[in-house]
Amino acid sequence: MKNIDLSLYLVTGEAESDEEFLKIIEEAIIGGVRIVQLREKTADTLDFYKLAVKVKKLTSEYNVPLIINDRLDIALAVDADGVHVGQSDMPCSVARELIGDDKILGVSATTVSEAKKAEDDGADYIGSGAVFPTKTKKDASSITKKDLTDIVNSISIPVVAIGGITVENARELTDTGIKGLSVVSEIMNADNPRETSEKLLNIFNS
Amino acid sequence: MKNIDLSLYLVTGEAESDEEFLKIIEEAIIGGVRIVQLREKTADTLDFYKLAVKVKKLTSEYNVPLIINDRLDIALAVDADGVHVGQSDMPCSVARELIGDDKILGVSATTVSEAKKAEDDGADYIGSGAVFPTKTKKDASSITKKDLTDIVNSISIPVVAIGGITVENARELTDTGIKGLSVVSEIMNADNPRETSEKLLNIFNS
Repeated sequence: MKNIDLSLYLVTGEAESDEEFLKIIEEAIIGGVRIVQLREKTADTLDFYKLAVKVKKLTSEYNVPLIINDRLDIALAVDADGVHVGQSDMPCSVARELIGDDKILGVSATTVSEAKKAEDDGADYIGSGAVFPTKTKKDASSITKKDLTDIVNSISIPVVAIGGITVENARELTDTGIKGLSVVSEIMNADNPRETSEKLLNIFNS
Repeated sequence: MKNIDLSLYLVTGEAESDEEFLKIIEEAIIGGVRIVQLREKTADTLDFYKLAVKVKKLTSEYNVPLIINDRLDIALAVDADGVHVGQSDMPCSVARELIGDDKILGVSATTVSEAKKAEDDGADYIGSGAVFPTKTKKDASSITKKDLTDIVNSISIPVVAIGGITVENARELTDTGIKGLSVVSEIMNADNPRETSEKLLNIFNS
């Protein structure tokens, strides 16, 4: 099993400009984010690629792994540290074959059977949610704290929780056995992404 | 330079079902299509992958190359024969590095400078258009017959024309120096895709 620090996992959202976007990511990393996932569902391939090049440069400077959501071609093109696939993306086993054994492969799972299958098919970690109501993914099916705990207990690879996690509610998840908090809006939309990241990491580590 | 038969090049459009879609492609190949490009701009990655697996099986049976539009990850996943990138997709040089020298790499170009750059960056052929008004790509900028001829004359790799080509107007392009007709709607929406493909190939070869 790979030794990946998933404790505070930033999944990117929207920002007003590339500069603003990169600034938020940098502040979040300084504050405590340990791994970054670039998620971009609407951009042209060229724009996604160009942004990924910039983000990779930034995360490399801070020695933080960069994971690309869905698009293995972008991950390969920028030599990202891994990819994250959902249940509507490339099958986990195919993704593993394409990126090789050394890269990080994450899979979204909302059920024990999805999580077990992903582990069997070569996933390094599972992302499970939405654990709280979320505006980022309106169609995300929500899971209970018990669902999350069941998933954690059914597999040996680490699980991160995602979906509506905030400084206010993060503490509710600390007894579920998860290895990290995966956060979008709470950091991306924060007045002070660095401080918010510090708080979230402290909550998770305490 | 690779020896690729581009004379009748089908770029896929929409169909009512996967079965219907595959049927049209098969009939078109039997009628005379020599190379197939799978273009899918809205599907989830998983659906695109599954469809590409089916199309690859079909084209392999007929020994016709399969090109994937834009998505290098899909091309790699199904071991397609190549990829086709537009000016908003992965840069040509990056695409070439990812797919290797043996795979076919096509690039869309509407100007001489785009075509020359693509040739320099490793493209095997150029797709140029729209040469006629098209409903498939409403935002496609149109090029004149002179533009097309200029592009053909500016590079040494082959050029195929695309955009609104029909049995009625195809003959207008035969003195431009192009190496093939790239067709979407005229075949995909034909009452008889086999017969339409036969006619188009005959026009091009005559």
